[in-house]
Amino acid sequence: MEFKARKIAEFLDGELTGDPEVLVTNVSAIEDGKKGTLSFLSNPKYEKYLYTTRSSVVLINKSLQVSKGIKPVLIRVDDAYKAFAMLLDLYVQNLPEKSGTDKPAFISPTASLGGENYIGAFAFIGENAIIGKGAKIYPQVYIGDNARIGDNTIIYPGVKIYHDCIIGADCIIHSGTVIGSDGFGFAPQQDKSYKKIPQIGNVILEDDVEIGSNVSVDRATMGSTIIRKGSKLDNLIQIAHNVEIGKNSIVTAQAGIAGSSKLGSECMIGAQAGLVGHIQLASGVKVAAQSGVTNNVEKEGTVIMGSPATNFMDNKRSLAVFKNLPDMFQRLNKLEKELNELKKSQSPDEK
Amino acid sequence: MEFKARKIAEFLDGELTGDPEVLVTNVSAIEDGKKGTLSFLSNPKYEKYLYTTRSSVVLINKSLQVSKGIKPVLIRVDDAYKAFAMLLDLYVQNLPEKSGTDKPAFISPTASLGGENYIGAFAFIGENAIIGKGAKIYPQVYIGDNARIGDNTIIYPGVKIYHDCIIGADCIIHSGTVIGSDGFGFAPQQDKSYKKIPQIGNVILEDDVEIGSNVSVDRATMGSTIIRKGSKLDNLIQIAHNVEIGKNSIVTAQAGIAGSSKLGSECMIGAQAGLVGHIQLASGVKVAAQSGVTNNVEKEGTVIMGSPATNFMDNKRSLAVFKNLPDMFQRLNKLEKELNELKKSQSPDEK
Amino acid sequence: MEFKARKIAEFLDGELTGDPEVLVTNVSAIEDGKKGTLSFLSNPKYEKYLYTTRSSVVLINKSLQVSKGIKPVLIRVDDAYKAFAMLLDLYVQNLPEKSGTDKPAFISPTASLGGENYIGAFAFIGENAIIGKGAKIYPQVYIGDNARIGDNTIIYPGVKIYHDCIIGADCIIHSGTVIGSDGFGFAPQQDKSYKKIPQIGNVILEDDVEIGSNVSVDRATMGSTIIRKGSKLDNLIQIAHNVEIGKNSIVTAQAGIAGSSKLGSECMIGAQAGLVGHIQLASGVKVAAQSGVTNNVEKEGTVIMGSPATNFMDNKRSLAVFKNLPDMFQRLNKLEKELNELKKSQSPDEK
Repeated sequence: MEFKARKIAEFLDGELTGDPEVLVTNVSAIEDGKKGTLSFLSNPKYEKYLYTTRSSVVLINKSLQVSKGIKPVLIRVDDAYKAFAMLLDLYVQNLPEKSGTDKPAFISPTASLGGENYIGAFAFIGENAIIGKGAKIYPQVYIGDNARIGDNTIIYPGVKIYHDCIIGADCIIHSGTVIGSDGFGFAPQQDKSYKKIPQIGNVILEDDVEIGSNVSVDRATMGSTIIRKGSKLDNLIQIAHNVEIGKNSIVTAQAGIAGSSKLGSECMIGAQAGLVGHIQLASGVKVAAQSGVTNNVEKEGTVIMGSPATNFMDNKRSLAVFKNLPDMFQRLNKLEKELNELKKSQSPDEK
Repeated sequence: MEFKARKIAEFLDGELTGDPEVLVTNVSAIEDGKKGTLSFLSNPKYEKYLYTTRSSVVLINKSLQVSKGIKPVLIRVDDAYKAFAMLLDLYVQNLPEKSGTDKPAFISPTASLGGENYIGAFAFIGENAIIGKGAKIYPQVYIGDNARIGDNTIIYPGVKIYHDCIIGADCIIHSGTVIGSDGFGFAPQQDKSYKKIPQIGNVILEDDVEIGSNVSVDRATMGSTIIRKGSKLDNLIQIAHNVEIGKNSIVTAQAGIAGSSKLGSECMIGAQAGLVGHIQLASGVKVAAQSGVTNNVEKEGTVIMGSPATNFMDNKRSLAVFKNLPDMFQRLNKLEKELNELKKSQSPDEK
Repeated sequence: MEFKARKIAEFLDGELTGDPEVLVTNVSAIEDGKKGTLSFLSNPKYEKYLYTTRSSVVLINKSLQVSKGIKPVLIRVDDAYKAFAMLLDLYVQNLPEKSGTDKPAFISPTASLGGENYIGAFAFIGENAIIGKGAKIYPQVYIGDNARIGDNTIIYPGVKIYHDCIIGADCIIHSGTVIGSDGFGFAPQQDKSYKKIPQIGNVILEDDVEIGSNVSVDRATMGSTIIRKGSKLDNLIQIAHNVEIGKNSIVTAQAGIAGSSKLGSECMIGAQAGLVGHIQLASGVKVAAQSGVTNNVEKEGTVIMGSPATNFMDNKRSLAVFKNLPDMFQRLNKLEKELNELKKSQSPDEK
């Protein structure tokens, strides 16, 4: 795609300064600008880049006072970030969309397709599976028997969705992610071996859920592992059987949530954090990266940190002292010595 | 599947109270009960749910004294949990089984199939690979050249098993797992680049091993990376080259074991824990979640915790004091001040 | 493959002691030696194995004085490790190589293949994708539209490379790895939901990069996520959008690097370590396993440790004291008590 600066200014209803015929073929961050790219400047902290960028066109806020000579074409708008985001959305919406059915794909005769689908090569769609209208099933995806995929959901290459799992509408699932593998449940036997406990539940993703790449979401032992509407999961995350994640929650990369734990709405779990099983977090709870959560958190909006996790500020204070431990240790030794000397000097007669 | 309560009671040799014609189509946890589901009550802690559940049928222990009016049909048996587990096994055994060979699949002419197999669509079976009797190879699985899969083993969609690896009988491997990728071995060169050290060993899984989804088990540099009989691995686990995991061990999600480390039998590695390379754990050693194990553990059954990991109780005690560090810091400051004042007051003349 | 000891000695220009007709069919570590294997002894620490090994042939340094009767055939060379590595390389170079195109594979008519390629069954190669000369695309790999794969690069089974990503020459990518999935970027909305921020950048891997299995490398929001020449990544690693990893760096298993962080050349990131977003590490910085890096590290070659990470030796010292915390706590209590008693005894009149 290729646009003239003039066209962009007209579209955004912005004021153009510079050559209106300059061509834009891509976007870039202002500090990484190249000829032919469009950038934006919203945060005054980055104003310095306006004078060094090689971007051809930069969107700026009308309120910004520009002090020196500027090379790129400027387009002044009310809110440069919003205008840029609007252009980005437009750009993405105009990317060519996959459609039709590549050959070969394996579609069970009893599966049902809602229409306007893309079914990629080597995709497998099992018995009685239901694929919603406009859903895109990329190459090498596996949709197990009786699984359901909602309207307009995008399943990227190689995702595996086991039988009976239910994916809502407008979801996005990235490559390598596995939905519905068996929960980790084994009964110890007399001879120290383990007997598998059948995992006969499923996984339910509500609408507008996005899941990154190489995530594992296990099916419930009975009932459902549930990720509620609007939640977003990053990459390489472990969601164990019977976990429930509330609406609009965020789980960052490499975090893990053990079996049957429940999160309220709008929780945020930091990267590489872990939650033990069978605990509950109230809505809005935030867990710092690399924390280990071992207990219920009942107060909404609590921020916790550490392994085991405690109140964020308390943990910060303990960590500050942790750095001084060697010094504290020496001071303690010194104090003991001095006190002993003092005691001795006090009672020369008693010895 | 659909059963009348009467049939279930007869099968379990239990005593039925209520309408014997009630229909059961699924199972549920007692607290999640719905019409048409069968639940069990074994732990007296959950007795309250007996009076609120919407399950149609509940299995209870004969020994349980039920105090008030109960809505669901009750079936009294000697051990409600065991009876439930028996029903569950029966249910799972009666699920329809995949069989035959989907088209297209790629089966090398030199591969050998033991019979009674399921080979899913888009599965790849390499040269001289041997697939045991009754083994199920789901869609999009890759079995490399010379690899061997034992009888009745289930390989779920998209698993990749590299050449020369050996999987025992009655194993289960979940989607996204990679067996036999190269170990991480590189020789530093003069120019600061790295030269790959060929990884020409393999991976051996003994019988009855289950591995979750998105696990990485690297092949040995030479010899074999080995997971012994009956061990169970959760999801997203790293097993490096030349690791050995003893019989009936448990490794929980997102744990990692570095190169050449050896675990005895019946070890338990907690979630997100890490072991450095070239160490040995005695049998029955338990490692708490998020621990970092940096040394051999020679005593059987030792429980360790922390990063670096130390004796479990010692670590717990240190963590308890860690919470009080800011308080300790202030007390130490106060003590120093007081002692100084005391010393001053002792020797006014010397100053 | 099968070689006589005599042939190996001739090839290495080494001195043979023992039966020159002994056959070698495989290699092994000296401590795991079996009949028919060739081992080497380089580190004097392992000399004891020379007297117990069951290897048929052992390479040793000419400088080594052998004290007792030895069972295996010995071949004396200048540097046993180098000689062994040479044999290993030779062995690997002589393994049969995959070539040709398995059927079925999906190759877009607009894709271009450089020749001498292997294209495995069920591989998908998208529109305008470019596959370099001698590149090997194993079964079930996905190469998105406009992606480029350099000469002689090996993409193992099931790897997914999203559209527009660029992989250099002589790279190796192992199964389950995903290159170019969307970065984790969402804008919070008034109603507490999140709006996806389009991720329109790509991923660039320079030449000689090796990536293990089940790794996630996200595409940039704008611009590129970059892994520079010669860097090696282990398994199950998270590389977020817009990260840059400098030349010849090492990232160990299960580590994670958050968005826009930049590493210099020759960095080493330990297993399960995490870096927050938007920080920079100077060249040669080493991060210990399980550390959490929260700040820039400006001095080259700094070694850091802990969560939050601090100077390695400082952290070690604090950890040493951490073990003694319960003891310190009691000593502090005792000191306070003694000091109070002392003060009381000092001023009996004042009370």
